[in-house]
Amino acid sequence: MACERDQHFMRLAIRLGARGLGRVWPNPAVGCVLVRGGRVLARGWTQPGGRPHAEAIALAKCDARGATAYVSLEPCAHHGLTPPCAQTLINSGVVRVVTALTDPDPRVSGRGHAMLRAAGVEVLENVEAEAARALNAGFLMRLSQGRPWVTLKLALTLDGRIATQTDESRWITCPEARRMVHVLRARHDAVLVGAGTARADDPDLRVRDLGTTHHPVRIVAAPRLDIPVEGRLGRTVQEVPVWLLHGATADQDARKRWSGAGAELLECAATPEGLVPDAMLQTLGQRGITRLFCEGGGHLAASLLRAGLVDDLIVFSAGKMIGSEGRAGLAQLGVTRLADAPHFKLTDLRQVGADIVHTWTRQTV
Amino acid sequence: MACERDQHFMRLAIRLGARGLGRVWPNPAVGCVLVRGGRVLARGWTQPGGRPHAEAIALAKCDARGATAYVSLEPCAHHGLTPPCAQTLINSGVVRVVTALTDPDPRVSGRGHAMLRAAGVEVLENVEAEAARALNAGFLMRLSQGRPWVTLKLALTLDGRIATQTDESRWITCPEARRMVHVLRARHDAVLVGAGTARADDPDLRVRDLGTTHHPVRIVAAPRLDIPVEGRLGRTVQEVPVWLLHGATADQDARKRWSGAGAELLECAATPEGLVPDAMLQTLGQRGITRLFCEGGGHLAASLLRAGLVDDLIVFSAGKMIGSEGRAGLAQLGVTRLADAPHFKLTDLRQVGADIVHTWTRQTV
Ligand SMILES: NC(=O)c1ccc[n+]([C@@H]2O[C@H](COP(=O)([O-])OP(=O)(O)OC[C@H]3O[C@@H](n4cnc5c(N)ncnc54)[C@H](OP(=O)(O)O)[C@@H]3O)[C@@H](O)[C@H]2O)c1
Ligand SMILES: NC(=O)c1ccc[n+]([C@@H]2O[C@H](COP(=O)([O-])OP(=O)(O)OC[C@H]3O[C@@H](n4cnc5c(N)ncnc54)[C@H](OP(=O)(O)O)[C@@H]3O)[C@@H](O)[C@H]2O)c1
Repeated sequence: MACERDQHFMRLAIRLGARGLGRVWPNPAVGCVLVRGGRVLARGWTQPGGRPHAEAIALAKCDARGATAYVSLEPCAHHGLTPPCAQTLINSGVVRVVTALTDPDPRVSGRGHAMLRAAGVEVLENVEAEAARALNAGFLMRLSQGRPWVTLKLALTLDGRIATQTDESRWITCPEARRMVHVLRARHDAVLVGAGTARADDPDLRVRDLGTTHHPVRIVAAPRLDIPVEGRLGRTVQEVPVWLLHGATADQDARKRWSGAGAELLECAATPEGLVPDAMLQTLGQRGITRLFCEGGGHLAASLLRAGLVDDLIVFSAGKMIGSEGRAGLAQLGVTRLADAPHFKLTDLRQVGADIVHTWTRQTV
Repeated sequence: MACERDQHFMRLAIRLGARGLGRVWPNPAVGCVLVRGGRVLARGWTQPGGRPHAEAIALAKCDARGATAYVSLEPCAHHGLTPPCAQTLINSGVVRVVTALTDPDPRVSGRGHAMLRAAGVEVLENVEAEAARALNAGFLMRLSQGRPWVTLKLALTLDGRIATQTDESRWITCPEARRMVHVLRARHDAVLVGAGTARADDPDLRVRDLGTTHHPVRIVAAPRLDIPVEGRLGRTVQEVPVWLLHGATADQDARKRWSGAGAELLECAATPEGLVPDAMLQTLGQRGITRLFCEGGGHLAASLLRAGLVDDLIVFSAGKMIGSEGRAGLAQLGVTRLADAPHFKLTDLRQVGADIVHTWTRQTV
């Protein structure tokens, strides 16, 4: 049985793990807290790139004999470049290990827990499991479905517009909301936009003004590779990776130009409507992406929604009205009956500067 | 100087006054609390129809000698059917009167305060003035601009739609949100919809399921009076008033049918685009309406917004997406530059059932 103290330290471990979000892919973002006599001896979290693991970091900082280790995911049991964490925990002399989730990775999947128990360490599982699952939704999604967890951002006026009829869209949202978008970028493995947005806005897609040197991979869905290499993405390929998802018939010259500039070209299935949403996400999953942040535009967003591939939806609503001659924030969905409209459940609601931000998660009916 | 105790009792008076909203027009909704030795002796608020006044109600309930009276609006000073409240207060023996606002009605406007002071009663003004102004925004708007305070409701999907392409719109919002709409109706003097909505939805517009027998006046903006008298509004004219705003060229037969049924016909200026928004509101102001709740549809809402006549905006957002082939919740606004888009400032934000409700107030830049 988990007592309140166990839950408290596990929540701390989960919060520590969250520091790795966006930086540890394809690995999970794990946190570890070592506790003895009610006092925290050391803390650790998965390091950028996915290694060292949280347990190794924490154990290296103290003498853990007699301690309890709180780990937000089952410790690994397979030998890689380093000994498995389950073994390191045993060697350290900890007497009790509390975990939140069994690692679904077939190389671990219960073996970490078994190894600890075989060595006489007391093991308590499933403490704060729901919060740990939320933390690693991307990691778990990729293991179970082969694709990243998809968060779609929409920044809209109160009447659902993203630009005036003359395409003026800077700025619909307030500076605080735009800053929050940069925080969201930093917590994702990759950012995705459609070729329409790449052509119209010439976006940079890096994280700005947060004092971080970490940036997500920048990805454009560009079936024909029809985006000018002279733009901001092309000019900064050497600084932060650019991946281009394209179809089989993409222009050969464009391929050469973009490869030459240093972009990574990822071919995937396409139809005349564009790249096949599921194929795009599978391709990114194969490349290790666990958390994908889609920033539009309206056509790409609609195509992901239509395919049922948007897991979280973050809507920024600004207190403005543009009217029906403005540009819709979302293109056609092919919905005729209200019951067929994609449904979402509210998970968060707050004011950010002059705007509001509401977060919704996919409703599986 | 107002002390904390004065503010506390004034806030109570204001909350009591709010009970009259929607029922006291064309009068203000006033609250009164009588206090002696820190204890409340009696409470009163403006009664349905606007009389008796709050002070008279409270004073009739107790011996107020030596008490302080908290009144959310300056007591009246003019003789009408009853003696002025300032005189009733003097006669009652209260020694101190605390008010929140000077009554801008030219028949009062400082004379109530002066009368009290002349009789030796101590008077403290402007306590919780902002909250009192908010409570009586409709009364104040009608006195200063000749029109009611306008609250526009929009019930939308996350992408700003009110119906699918096949006009299915029941129900976009959740039962709790629809119930809140009935609460809002009950707090307004009148409800307004466009003829398009009257034709498409055949709405009833009464307050349902709140255990109240009070209903707002039901008003339709129908330039040509092109709404079937056989509908719900026509069938219930005898129970709750129906007013029809129409143009000079409205069909003579329709006029006869609707007057015959018992509706009130209000002629006002029109152009080929519809009734002139300012003319509609002035007409309603002349008839005493202080608080108007507009429930759409998209064309009427756009025309009020375009004219800068929407004071408060209440948006219900449901966690659904319909896509750009759905019906827009707001028609054309004629906005080309973002700077010209109507701007609103957030005043309230909450979850209601599965939906969110955000309230915004007009930004006067
Ligand atoms: N306010 C905001 O939050 C925000 C965010 C982003 C964008 N925007 C605005 O949105 C506008 C661009 O949006 P948009 O809808 O025109 O373009 P978009 O959705 O960004 O891009 C559409 C293009 O993406 C490519 N694509 C690849 N696979 C696709 C698929 N499965 N479904 C749809 N498209 C796919 C196609 O490129 P090809 O044409 O090359 O074949 C398609 O034309 C710009 O005006 C931009 O400023 C606003
Ligand atoms: N989800 C919601 O919250 C909600 C609320 C209300 C309505 N709706 C939906 O909205 C649709 C109806 O909306 P709508 O936009 O077509 O109609 P609307 O705005 O309700 O009515 C437009 C009509 O109102 C009259 N009108 C008078 N003065 C006007 C003015 N200054 N500006 C504009 N119109 C004026 C005209 O009547 P004449 O045509 O007779 O000249 C005009 O055609 C329906 O499908 C209804 O279900 C949804």
